This record gives sequence, structure tokens and C-alpha cells, in this order.
Amino acid sequence: MAGRKEDPAIAVPTRALSNVRFNEESRHIEMGENKQSRNFFNYGQAKRFMQTLLVASKCKELIDRDKTASIRQVYYLSKHTIKGTKEKTFDDQSESDPVIEDLEVAIDSLREELHVFASNRGNMAGPVTLVDAGNTLDCAAMGSAGYAVPSIVEADVIQFKKCSAKFILHVEKDTVWRRFHEDRFWETHRCIISHGGGQPARGMRRLLRRMHEELKLPVFVLLDNDPWGYYIYSVIKHGSINLAYESRRMAVPDAVFLGVSSFDYERCEMSDDVKIELDANDIKRAKQIANYPWFADKRPWQKEIRKMLANGFKMEVEAMISKDLEYLTGEYVPMKLKDKKQWLD
Amino acid sequence: MAGRKEDPAIAVPTRALSNVRFNEESRHIEMGENKQSRNFFNYGQAKRFMQTLLVASKCKELIDRDKTASIRQVYYLSKHTIKGTKEKTFDDQSESDPVIEDLEVAIDSLREELHVFASNRGNMAGPVTLVDAGNTLDCAAMGSAGYAVPSIVEADVIQFKKCSAKFILHVEKDTVWRRFHEDRFWETHRCIISHGGGQPARGMRRLLRRMHEELKLPVFVLLDNDPWGYYIYSVIKHGSINLAYESRRMAVPDAVFLGVSSFDYERCEMSDDVKIELDANDIKRAKQIANYPWFADKRPWQKEIRKMLANGFKMEVEAMISKDLEYLTGEYVPMKLKDKKQWLD
Repeated sequence: MAGRKEDPAIAVPTRALSNVRFNEESRHIEMGENKQSRNFFNYGQAKRFMQTLLVASKCKELIDRDKTASIRQVYYLSKHTIKGTKEKTFDDQSESDPVIEDLEVAIDSLREELHVFASNRGNMAGPVTLVDAGNTLDCAAMGSAGYAVPSIVEADVIQFKKCSAKFILHVEKDTVWRRFHEDRFWETHRCIISHGGGQPARGMRRLLRRMHEELKLPVFVLLDNDPWGYYIYSVIKHGSINLAYESRRMAVPDAVFLGVSSFDYERCEMSDDVKIELDANDIKRAKQIANYPWFADKRPWQKEIRKMLANGFKMEVEAMISKDLEYLTGEYVPMKLKDKKQWLD
Repeated sequence: MAGRKEDPAIAVPTRALSNVRFNEESRHIEMGENKQSRNFFNYGQAKRFMQTLLVASKCKELIDRDKTASIRQVYYLSKHTIKGTKEKTFDDQSESDPVIEDLEVAIDSLREELHVFASNRGNMAGPVTLVDAGNTLDCAAMGSAGYAVPSIVEADVIQFKKCSAKFILHVEKDTVWRRFHEDRFWETHRCIISHGGGQPARGMRRLLRRMHEELKLPVFVLLDNDPWGYYIYSVIKHGSINLAYESRRMAVPDAVFLGVSSFDYERCEMSDDVKIELDANDIKRAKQIANYPWFADKRPWQKEIRKMLANGFKMEVEAMISKDLEYLTGEYVPMKLKDKKQWLD
């Protein structure tokens, strides 16, 4: 901010691909040093300047009232017609969402710390007891859908009490997760099983990171053998490119890709029934992902992706059960966990 | 099935719009009497006949092993290459899904009773204690995301133990639900709050029905003021047209539409900020819904839908908080609950 007689301004780190880089040491995607100044006395920037302060004041109000709001709710809270004009502060949520992101980077916080939440998605089960909003919950006894991971999982909401799990197995979909839960995988392998309902929501990723860091649990990831699966792994491990600034507190750089690998078709003697032909988009995406800086210099990943392209097909985690309903949980994953040579890092 | 020397056949009630009708008395959508015979000694039907038996045998296996599987898993379990040929039992899940539905109607069961599950979605909180897969869960103390409603909620999985709630408030989205949960609405109003993450999944609908029936709880529904909101209400109340056969055990014909009503813009003196213009598709859908037999002869619903068309705009539940963060939970819904004249049935 500026002093007296100066043009009020906010410095916002530039959220653009050009200002994103891969930190080789910490192994997460991070933002560079570029900043943009947003000035009040600038015809082109005044509106955005005011919008930023408006959203900031709403966040301050949320924190003061000890309430949270969705990004859509922040939009409705901030939208009004400016007195004496027909001009609205925001015409659409697509205007307020980037302002929330600006604010996150400008004051180096996560939106969850500003009491703003995203949709929640994801469940988990296993021998960990935590306190969530004052309720003590044993995740080994939370019913058939498990513990519902909320959108805000910061330390003021969730505290870990007890944990006898040795690792976390994170799977892609709820239907796969249910297979593991029903087969009591978390009990026989003393672990936590979690899923994110596809690309995991922020709450799930942040919780994985916190459990990894605070409970010292290794994270294994089981995803479909397709470019989308590779991408989900990439985001869990290194962070997302669009929201690079959050990676520092969301990414799990030690996460291990357990499968499904392109080599598993032969390795596990699967039948043709599991094959799904790659389409043009799959091939394009696979090549893009192979060129991500964090995959480009890893020989095992290059081999993995080349093998998928050579196979000409992709495979789903659920396809593993075409051998038997319990093959996935009783044989496939235990084999994968044992044989470190099959891990992709 | 057929006796000795007869052509083996299965009678499958016809799942087509022509065989669907609205039962005025029970107030749910139901199937008519039309059946199709599926014969083994019929060139055009033999494959489907075999597929039906194959899926049936997999379901029997699931039940015998006390396991469940997703519809995708049933597909992979049933898919194989027929010995000595290159013919597959199923080429695609789009072939096995209708067979599961055939089976449901042919033996008058829900897929959940055949141990087949859909994706789960939806959460709830409030003063009800239930047992889920042997775990006793107090839904008033399940953390910030509440109790995760599983995909199978039949009586062998979920039993109700204790309930001091007086009614259920079902809302459309998780972000709205979180508003109610955070504001402790279930506590101040002694009720259960639930959401289905949009169009509620089967598990959520079946649980609403069971709580309505077994715990004698009235169901109030709070949805966006748009054709999609009307449609969700229609499905919760009367059942879905595509899966008419399940309505008898999933629909809640007494469910009450609490809002958001097209009249609430004026009634609640909302500002212009809540308006979202109707598009051509909204207008088309609204007219279609007005013509549903179960809405067509209800004057209040005709007025409601006509008012939306006259307004020319739709409104979201979350827009109500543009007045204040707590307006929705502290004023709007309490007012709606009190004033029976505003209920839409």
C-alpha cells in the first residue's frame, strides 16, 4: 500500500504461465518474482483495485464473524450497484473469482485462511482419529461412505489425535474406494484409504499434505492408466500450474505413483477385456505431460508414457477386477506395494 | 422362465415413456403393464437374453459373497470373450447398464438389493443417530462436512437408532448446505439438513424416503429458482421418468417445495443483484415442466412457473445472502417454514 499523497496501489504477483517455474529443490511448481502493481489513480486499474479491496473487506468480515463462505457466496456478498450509478461492483462470478486469487497471492495466504471455501469432495477411512469442528471422529468407524473430507481442513478446524496407519493409499474414484473399504483394505494393511472423486478438491489435497507432513505418512496414489491419471498424479505431487502459488502448502512432492502402469497389462497378464483404445486427444495429452519439466528428465516416466502410446490403449483401475472382484485389493495393490521397482516417483 | 422343451424366455416390463404413467392416488410415476418377452431361441434376442443371465449370475455371486460392485465393476466382471470366438459378451458399459435395469424391473428389485451401487453423493447433519455398516453414528457430531450418505442405504446396511428431529430440510448444493451447517440451523430448528450435490443420487433419495417413512419426518426442499430446481423437486417428490419403476421406493410424494419461489423477489424485497436472465433453454424447460401431468392441474405450480417466465429471470438460493450472510438461515427459511401459504405442494 502507499503512503500519504501517493497513489494507492496493491502489488499482486503475476499469475501467468510465464511467471511459473518448477523448483527442482522443493519439487513443487511455484511462482516467479514478477509482480503487477494495481493502482487506484489509473483508469484501467481503478475498478479492479476497488474490487480487490471490496473482496478483501468481505473476507475480513468473514474472519471477524467466524464464518466461512463459498466463492459464489463471496460474489453475492460483494455484488451491489454503486450508489447514484447503474454500475455494478461485479457483473459475474468470473470477475470475483480471479480477485480472490489475487488476494491469496498478494497476502500469501490460502483462500481457506481467508474463510473462503470451494466445493468439497472426497472421503477417507482408516486408523486415524481426528477432531473436526470439535467432534472427535474415528475414521475407522465412520460407516460405509467413510469420513467426509470438508473443504476447509486447516489446523484451527482439524486436529489429528491418534494415528496407527503406516501409509495413505489415495485412489481416483469413489467407486474404487468403496471396493477397498468393503474389502477392509485399511484394516489388513494398516493404512488410510482416501479418494478425491476424480481430480481431488483443495480440501482433500491439503489434508493429504497435512497427514503426510504431520503424521509422517507416505502417500501412494492409484489412478487410471490414462493421461488424466498422470495429470492427477502431477497435481497431487507438484501442484497445479494454474494455481502455482498454493503448491507450497498443497503439494506432496514425495507421493509415489503405484499404478495402473502401462506395463501392468503384460506384467499382470490381463485379458484384452481391459483395453480402451486411446483417442487423438489422449495421445496429444500424453505427449504434453511427457514434456512437463518435472517428467521430462525422469527416464521411468518417459518409458511409462511411451509404453502407453505404444500400447495404443488405456486401462482403468476398475478393469483390474475383471480377473476377480478381489484381485485389485487382494493381489494387485499388495504386489505393487511390495515391489519398489514398480513404483514411479 | 420356461418349462421343459419350451423356449427359455424372460419377461421384462417395458422401460419406455409409452409405458410410464402418473399414479394419481399414490402420487408417484410408475410403469404400466406392458412387458416384452426376451427369448433364447430368437436370433435378435439371444444375445440380450444371455447378457441378462450373465449379469444376473454376477449379482447372485455378489450377494452370495456379501460384496457389492459399481455398475462399471459389474461391466468388467461380466465382460469376456466367448470361447472359440472373437465375440465379447459386452463391448461397452452402455450395453450392461440397461441389462441391470432390465433385471431390476424383471424381478421387481432395486439395484442396491442386487448389491450394485451407483456413485455416492450427499451429506447430512442433525439430531439423528444411525448405525451404518455396524458403526453407530451421531449425525449431530460428524464434523464440518457431516455424515457422508453412502450409495447403498437399505435396512441391512443402515438402521435408525434415535431421532429427535422434527423435519428434514433438503438443499440442492453442498455450498448452501455448509451455510446451514455452519449457522447451526439443525440445532436451532431441531431438524436434519441434507444436500444431494445437485440432482440427488439414488442413495440420498432412498434415505430421504426411508427417514420420511420410518421416522415420520416431513421433507422440505430448498432449491434454486430455475427449471432445474423444479425438476429436482419433481424427481424427489414423484420419481424420475427414466427410472419410473424405482419411484415406488424412492419418491417422497409428500415433499414440500419451500423455495426459492419466483414470487420471493418481490415478497422478500430482493435487489436486482440476484437476477440471472432466463435463456431460451430455461424457457423451453420451464414450459415442459409446467406440462408434466403432476404439475399440469396444480394452480399454484402453474402460477409459480408462469411467474418465472414473466420475471424473465431466475434466482439461486445463494443469492439470498446478498442481503446478509445469515439472511438465508436466520430469516428467509424460518419465514418460509412458518408461512404455510407459501409452500408449494
